[in-house]
Amino acid sequence: MSTTVTAPTPSSDALIERLNWRYAAKKMDPAQPVPEDKVARIVEAARLAPTSSGLQPFELIVVTNPEVRARIREIAWNQAQITDGSHLLVFAAWDTYTAERIDTMFDLTNQVRGFTNEGWENYRQMLLSSYPQRDAEVNFQHAARQAYIAMSAALLAAAFEGVDATPMEGFDPAKLDEILGLRARGLRSAVIVPLGHRQVDGDWLVNLPKVRRPLEQFVSELR
Amino acid sequence: MSTTVTAPTPSSDALIERLNWRYAAKKMDPAQPVPEDKVARIVEAARLAPTSSGLQPFELIVVTNPEVRARIREIAWNQAQITDGSHLLVFAAWDTYTAERIDTMFDLTNQVRGFTNEGWENYRQMLLSSYPQRDAEVNFQHAARQAYIAMSAALLAAAFEGVDATPMEGFDPAKLDEILGLRARGLRSAVIVPLGHRQVDGDWLVNLPKVRRPLEQFVSELR
Repeated sequence: MSTTVTAPTPSSDALIERLNWRYAAKKMDPAQPVPEDKVARIVEAARLAPTSSGLQPFELIVVTNPEVRARIREIAWNQAQITDGSHLLVFAAWDTYTAERIDTMFDLTNQVRGFTNEGWENYRQMLLSSYPQRDAEVNFQHAARQAYIAMSAALLAAAFEGVDATPMEGFDPAKLDEILGLRARGLRSAVIVPLGHRQVDGDWLVNLPKVRRPLEQFVSELR
Repeated sequence: MSTTVTAPTPSSDALIERLNWRYAAKKMDPAQPVPEDKVARIVEAARLAPTSSGLQPFELIVVTNPEVRARIREIAWNQAQITDGSHLLVFAAWDTYTAERIDTMFDLTNQVRGFTNEGWENYRQMLLSSYPQRDAEVNFQHAARQAYIAMSAALLAAAFEGVDATPMEGFDPAKLDEILGLRARGLRSAVIVPLGHRQVDGDWLVNLPKVRRPLEQFVSELR
């Protein structure tokens, strides 16, 4: 008698379970800060997320300072999670693409891989001849989209860590840039995400069902 | 002697492992199509992804038709994964926010939850009094960012399924809109993702190390 051992079929069931678990917590418990090792893994997921041409055109600022978060809350519709959570992730996109920024990533790639490649160098030149000349606003909007890819990966990592994360666009970006000194660093705030743990007895949303459009209104097939 | 049984600490190690596994496959094997049940779970992850105000301002078109994919490849820098993969995901964002679209999502929410809520209705009115009046391009850009959140979730779901997924911005969006008849549906293409399986012996990227900026150049803390 023989037995065949096969590797388990990979599945995204756990990911889908975590997507159903997560929600935009409306009330976070100030008494339950997120441990630093969990924050580190959430940041790592954002760092590993894919981006257009691998440029990673954004930075992540992790704000724990209570006074700074209180000031940010004031310019963010007074949303309490910003100060009730323990960490505030600020995804700040490049204000534009410059030759220096593009070269830095291409040089890093050559350094890590230990060689140069003609196709890769041609691709560098193609980007250098188009991105830096474009309108800065177009470049920022493009960079901000890439930041959203990383933000999504961070939200999913948080869910796997049992950490609540509430993405927020409701803030005054110019004022946030000022509070954090972002413009001087060539950055503009794109989206913010408080991290914390849901406070069940104070959160109107926690027990309500998740609402998504039914599949037939969301997806169509072209066979 | 007593033993204490504790629940396993939740962890995103598996997610980070999958982020390291995935890459933008440059050569997909036409002989290895992605099974439909895997595609269904990848689509479900996109459907469950969070979006601003829960509006889900995009649709997902899954193109398997070979002739249509061949036409899309022509307006997408001839990238072979579009026809070598088995499925092409097209994330198409709303061309603008309309009162009807906003109402549809708020009505659906009330229907699913079985009640109306004053705060929620006030929030609806706030969106109705701002979004539809904004420039359509601003609205589309906002909607496209939300599509990127879902796209990122889909990329991660694909990685959990052992499926390769190569996000692409390199295509002519106006021509893709035309091929798929998107404008008539109030949609504009934002990003496309072929799904398939890497063909190791034809992919120059498969064995090269992933390159990301070191942590200290990616994240900063404000304590």
